Amino acid sequence: MRLEIEASLVYEFASSTQVLISIQASQSRDQDIVSESLVFDPDAALTLDKNLEGDRRLRCVLSGPARITYRATIENRMRPLLPAQGRQHSWEELPHFAFPFLLPSRFCPSDRFMRFAQREFPQQGDGVARVLAVLDWIHRHIDYLHGVSDAETTALETFVDRAGVCRDFTHLAITFCRAIGVPARAVSAYALDLQPPDFHAVLEVYLENAWWLVDPTRLAPVGGLVRIGSGRDASDIAFMTTDKPCRMIEQNIVVRAVDQAADGPQSAQN
Amino acid sequence: MRLEIEASLVYEFASSTQVLISIQASQSRDQDIVSESLVFDPDAALTLDKNLEGDRRLRCVLSGPARITYRATIENRMRPLLPAQGRQHSWEELPHFAFPFLLPSRFCPSDRFMRFAQREFPQQGDGVARVLAVLDWIHRHIDYLHGVSDAETTALETFVDRAGVCRDFTHLAITFCRAIGVPARAVSAYALDLQPPDFHAVLEVYLENAWWLVDPTRLAPVGGLVRIGSGRDASDIAFMTTDKPCRMIEQNIVVRAVDQAADGPQSAQN
Amino acid sequence: MRLEIEASLVYEFASSTQVLISIQASQSRDQDIVSESLVFDPDAALTLDKNLEGDRRLRCVLSGPARITYRATIENRMRPLLPAQGRQHSWEELPHFAFPFLLPSRFCPSDRFMRFAQREFPQQGDGVARVLAVLDWIHRHIDYLHGVSDAETTALETFVDRAGVCRDFTHLAITFCRAIGVPARAVSAYALDLQPPDFHAVLEVYLENAWWLVDPTRLAPVGGLVRIGSGRDASDIAFMTTDKPCRMIEQNIVVRAVDQAADGPQSAQN
Amino acid sequence: MRLEIEASLVYEFASSTQVLISIQASQSRDQDIVSESLVFDPDAALTLDKNLEGDRRLRCVLSGPARITYRATIENRMRPLLPAQGRQHSWEELPHFAFPFLLPSRFCPSDRFMRFAQREFPQQGDGVARVLAVLDWIHRHIDYLHGVSDAETTALETFVDRAGVCRDFTHLAITFCRAIGVPARAVSAYALDLQPPDFHAVLEVYLENAWWLVDPTRLAPVGGLVRIGSGRDASDIAFMTTDKPCRMIEQNIVVRAVDQAADGPQSAQN
Repeated sequence: MRLEIEASLVYEFASSTQVLISIQASQSRDQDIVSESLVFDPDAALTLDKNLEGDRRLRCVLSGPARITYRATIENRMRPLLPAQGRQHSWEELPHFAFPFLLPSRFCPSDRFMRFAQREFPQQGDGVARVLAVLDWIHRHIDYLHGVSDAETTALETFVDRAGVCRDFTHLAITFCRAIGVPARAVSAYALDLQPPDFHAVLEVYLENAWWLVDPTRLAPVGGLVRIGSGRDASDIAFMTTDKPCRMIEQNIVVRAVDQAADGPQSAQN
Repeated sequence: MRLEIEASLVYEFASSTQVLISIQASQSRDQDIVSESLVFDPDAALTLDKNLEGDRRLRCVLSGPARITYRATIENRMRPLLPAQGRQHSWEELPHFAFPFLLPSRFCPSDRFMRFAQREFPQQGDGVARVLAVLDWIHRHIDYLHGVSDAETTALETFVDRAGVCRDFTHLAITFCRAIGVPARAVSAYALDLQPPDFHAVLEVYLENAWWLVDPTRLAPVGGLVRIGSGRDASDIAFMTTDKPCRMIEQNIVVRAVDQAADGPQSAQN
Repeated sequence: MRLEIEASLVYEFASSTQVLISIQASQSRDQDIVSESLVFDPDAALTLDKNLEGDRRLRCVLSGPARITYRATIENRMRPLLPAQGRQHSWEELPHFAFPFLLPSRFCPSDRFMRFAQREFPQQGDGVARVLAVLDWIHRHIDYLHGVSDAETTALETFVDRAGVCRDFTHLAITFCRAIGVPARAVSAYALDLQPPDFHAVLEVYLENAWWLVDPTRLAPVGGLVRIGSGRDASDIAFMTTDKPCRMIEQNIVVRAVDQAADGPQSAQN
Repeated sequence: MRLEIEASLVYEFASSTQVLISIQASQSRDQDIVSESLVFDPDAALTLDKNLEGDRRLRCVLSGPARITYRATIENRMRPLLPAQGRQHSWEELPHFAFPFLLPSRFCPSDRFMRFAQREFPQQGDGVARVLAVLDWIHRHIDYLHGVSDAETTALETFVDRAGVCRDFTHLAITFCRAIGVPARAVSAYALDLQPPDFHAVLEVYLENAWWLVDPTRLAPVGGLVRIGSGRDASDIAFMTTDKPCRMIEQNIVVRAVDQAADGPQSAQN
């Protein structure tokens, strides 16, 4: 699917605030950036980091009011969907880079859920079936509700509260996956059809020698997702991190599917 | 049932330690104290508190090593067992003294379980049926295991860990009962057949205009319980509270059923 | 001081919501209710509970929108202020009713603060001096800020966050007092000069054979407080508790000092 | 200093337990492995991972009783000690690999300590001075005590409890460093003079373009440390991780300083 993104962030910063920003689409292999633009108003000196997978992060120092506008056209049709079945790897078989995503993390204390997960999602031959059982459990037991959770909420609390938003659904799914031995990581994304429009949090699971993107909220089609970055949990994938408090003035996210036959070529000229 | 209790506690106290002790059988209406003796070695000046229900607490100041020995013979045959059915009261109908046991407390954060409890134990005509559903859920999902929990463990953690000891079973049962609107309180007790012998924690639920004793661990027969005291949760029913750290040297609890025909009269002479 | 209170609460209730309301001034000995009125619109059947100290609670069943208006004129000049010095009681000397307020509770885990409190507020001859040291520590280290805490925040978290609102200041003060062996309880109140006007949370400490009201936020004069009720912590003194979620539509609290020479007699005729 | 290490671990594993083991000295640039041997009894197939800094981890599948013996002679004289002064980097200047160690993690919730840290360790020109102030604060306020903390204890709890073991000292130091903007990571180590001998946890801070090893417990000389591995906090540096519960039968750690003039050459022949 070809998607047009526009993210507009207006914030008021204290004098000389150090800022990390992760709002650019990842240059990962599963999506193609047809065109993009990033504008800081007022202008700012930017340092760009990019990891081995293509995830990008900007560093800058901002003061006073600032508007950050990111526009991009993304083609993500090469992203593979979770297959109908797939092998869960033993620790011996896993690539070394998957191990951090097997361990408990701040919002995903998977070690606390060993007994629950072993009983609820028992060992089977097929890894995909176990992950689908996890997603199905979450769909049946957790209500999508604003106001129950906040930025401190862990998967342990969501498991008790039985409600939360995309961040909480993702943390609980990651936690269960790790508890059954499937590496899982948090992914920040733009998402089509999200109401209200906002940054989205989903996850990737490692099965059959690859990462597969899944959305435990079932709010957006997986084909409608654009990856921004990934990490152990929400601690790692914030769209903005600052060393001093700042104040949001305005924030707008627009994600549109593009009719490729008509608009694709023009978009590519941007 | 007629029961003989012997509790022997040997502790080392720091100089002038203030101590609260709750180890005497309650003089509540559901049990009869046939005989009892309490010995402090060395001797200590004791202040006795007794609440309206007959629960007793001793206060004293202890220094150095001390042995506390409590012996009692108790008849508890007048204790009623949870009836086959019974009315859950509306808030309008409840006696005022039941309200503290409807609210969340430190180890029983029932407010966090509203959504879970409403869904798992839905409203029904009969209060006993709901309480039995709570006890059955706990029996099916929680393993009785030492080493998983400690003195800080709340029902929220036990719900996640799916394992614990009598204190944890009791906290989770109280939490679920309060979440469905049934007043529930923690009860410390002596218990027949407990392995290893120790102080026991159970609960009482308020239904059909009375408190009913239940043991969510199913380790001891309800007829084999001797009430010591009650409170909101484990915070209130510790058998010993001190204002300075102290060290246990030895602790033995023996609970025996007495053959009443033969031994009853003699016991009464103690 | 003579105070006029007007509290107006407009809420939308789900069908047949069970409600506990604690908004009436306490009929405690330290304040005199010159006049009062309570109006439910629409009308509702009310059950009134009053405890031994004169604290009152209403029970009712409400559905749909409801306006609750409480008006009262209170004279509180007989309330004694914390004396310049006063004895901290040993456990032997304390009245039995003070003990629940020495133990840790849900939002006031005083057992966790034993080491900190013993070091920061060391044993002294005078109990008032220790309590003043607690209040001074809080004044110097905790910022009064909205948005840092919520209804789940415990004193442990406020101690770390170093910020909070009246509820958090009160929980931390109670926690420290209990950790040094001074019974302390939470008190809900109306308060003069509070900005923005709202229900207020303060505490009482037990010293020199009496409870003394103190405001750790220093936002309102102690003479400008009207007691509503007391309990172990915020769990016990909510102004409204419901068995189903409800929605606030409007809430206004007005507290005014009355010029007694001129207005007192008229107020008394209300 | 030249150090001889012997670590002997005897555990009982459930059938086919997947195991990660991190007990080998790191092949990092600040220490030289003169000789080493690793023996599994019974023998086991091992997979070795090594990261860019030289930290090593073994993977294997174990069943039943197993003895793991690691012996090594290490020369660490090239490890630089924290300089007398050094620059704290702005976010712009930091290498990208330092950022994960600036963010809060499971046991080091540095975001909760922003207000405390800004006030207690105010901005200064010199980064080393701030880190020394952090270490001094910990030395003055935290008691080294067994039995207060466990494997779930976070820096937030240690800050309240005012006591803990090496793991807790390290978590609190990391938390404070991150809260003042200094990257800090947990390091597992062997340590000379540790009583009782055990694996040790210390930290590294990033200042003046390098990582510097510090021991907040002050139990072992920094020159007596041998690095094993590093990570965000204790979640990442466990010496053993298993996918099923296992039981320790015996564990012995011996660390000896070697008189290099006499023993060095012989040791090198091992």
